[in-house]
Amino acid sequence: MTNKLILLRHGQSEWNQKNLFTGWVDVRLTEQGRGEAARAGELMREAGILPDVLHTSVLSRAIQTSNLALDSADRLWIPVRRSWRLNERHYGALQGLDKAETLQKYGEEQFMEWRRSFDTPPPALDDASEWSQANDPRYDGIDGERPRTECLKDVIARLVPYWEGQILPDLNAGKTVLVTAHGNSLRALVKHLDGISDEDIAGLNIPTGMPLVYEIDENGSPVGESRYLDPEAAAAGAAAVASQGR
Amino acid sequence: MTNKLILLRHGQSEWNQKNLFTGWVDVRLTEQGRGEAARAGELMREAGILPDVLHTSVLSRAIQTSNLALDSADRLWIPVRRSWRLNERHYGALQGLDKAETLQKYGEEQFMEWRRSFDTPPPALDDASEWSQANDPRYDGIDGERPRTECLKDVIARLVPYWEGQILPDLNAGKTVLVTAHGNSLRALVKHLDGISDEDIAGLNIPTGMPLVYEIDENGSPVGESRYLDPEAAAAGAAAVASQGR
Repeated sequence: MTNKLILLRHGQSEWNQKNLFTGWVDVRLTEQGRGEAARAGELMREAGILPDVLHTSVLSRAIQTSNLALDSADRLWIPVRRSWRLNERHYGALQGLDKAETLQKYGEEQFMEWRRSFDTPPPALDDASEWSQANDPRYDGIDGERPRTECLKDVIARLVPYWEGQILPDLNAGKTVLVTAHGNSLRALVKHLDGISDEDIAGLNIPTGMPLVYEIDENGSPVGESRYLDPEAAAAGAAAVASQGR
Repeated sequence: MTNKLILLRHGQSEWNQKNLFTGWVDVRLTEQGRGEAARAGELMREAGILPDVLHTSVLSRAIQTSNLALDSADRLWIPVRRSWRLNERHYGALQGLDKAETLQKYGEEQFMEWRRSFDTPPPALDDASEWSQANDPRYDGIDGERPRTECLKDVIARLVPYWEGQILPDLNAGKTVLVTAHGNSLRALVKHLDGISDEDIAGLNIPTGMPLVYEIDENGSPVGESRYLDPEAAAAGAAAVASQGR
């Protein structure tokens, strides 16, 4: 007995387009991103894989993506749960910086360590920065845990309790679950699900707007391989993510 | 000590535009309706009255309206609760009929009784009708209560328990609550809040896309008069609703 889990990275955001480090900065989708989100909903409908419940981060680009995808899948009415634990990795002092300039200024090694190191976070973001979330009311309930920077290991530490405590119970109630989140929070979840090593996860890139479907057993383990609903487009999208900053 | 309740009727729907009885038929917003919804969010932001939690019906036009309003109010991230108890009145066998043709065919008296009678529902809708919700999965949990027609009294009977059990506790927790719903479910709620008589409620019309703000005390009673955030536009909108079918 398995249930379906659909992972969806938000469509292109304004800062994806501008090639800036985004993290917890609350940017919106571009027109292209809105189109990707609507297309994701069509793919779910065409495949007959329709979510019964939605989990999203509290960042607007993931929420916009799920709203548009559910609209084109004709599932706007399903219950919604939101959590900061599904947020993108907090990018610390890199938030707001241009990726290409950062690569040029700090060099390939430092750049890749910040982007893909498993356990070394970038420098912390100052609360006084215009890109800080220190005063954002959506995080008022989590003061003790509000990050100022994160590495992927930190993301896993705050995401896995949500997976186990909130998402898996929905799956085990027989529901098809849609999780709409971010490049690095989804990499964290995929690492956990597929048992990817701390080294190998650096090479995994998740494309925007492509539904990725898992069959999950009652213990929370995947059965068989996960699959993108549009494998060709997903492969092209993953290659584009890998080349960012270049 | 009072807390703010914002009532918002969805923007113009495809069937508002076509002048058809809609009820539980799940039609979408028109472009005009989408604009009204976005404007409602701007009005909330301009007034500094920002919702902390959203309650909607399970009908797409109300959900689209809240999604667009929260986007322009920059509050996409607030928690969302949905319930069929906030749905539009089920219009029975009138669902899908043209309002002007119905007025012509049945005459003024019957037409107004169906639209505004407090306790006489229209004939029930056959489960085999293309406009029936007998097989709609969003109502799978409420089989014993799934209506086939409703009068306003029926709407009050299924709405007030939700007001008392779900909305009022959010208000009493100090939250500003947005309720995005429908012409008749909001008339039912306003009747309950303002103690309007069974006769006088026939004359109350709620315009689309206009935030209506109440101050609610801990017992669930309004303090002072409710107010539209854009009173002039609201008066014009209410007059347009009153003249439907003519």
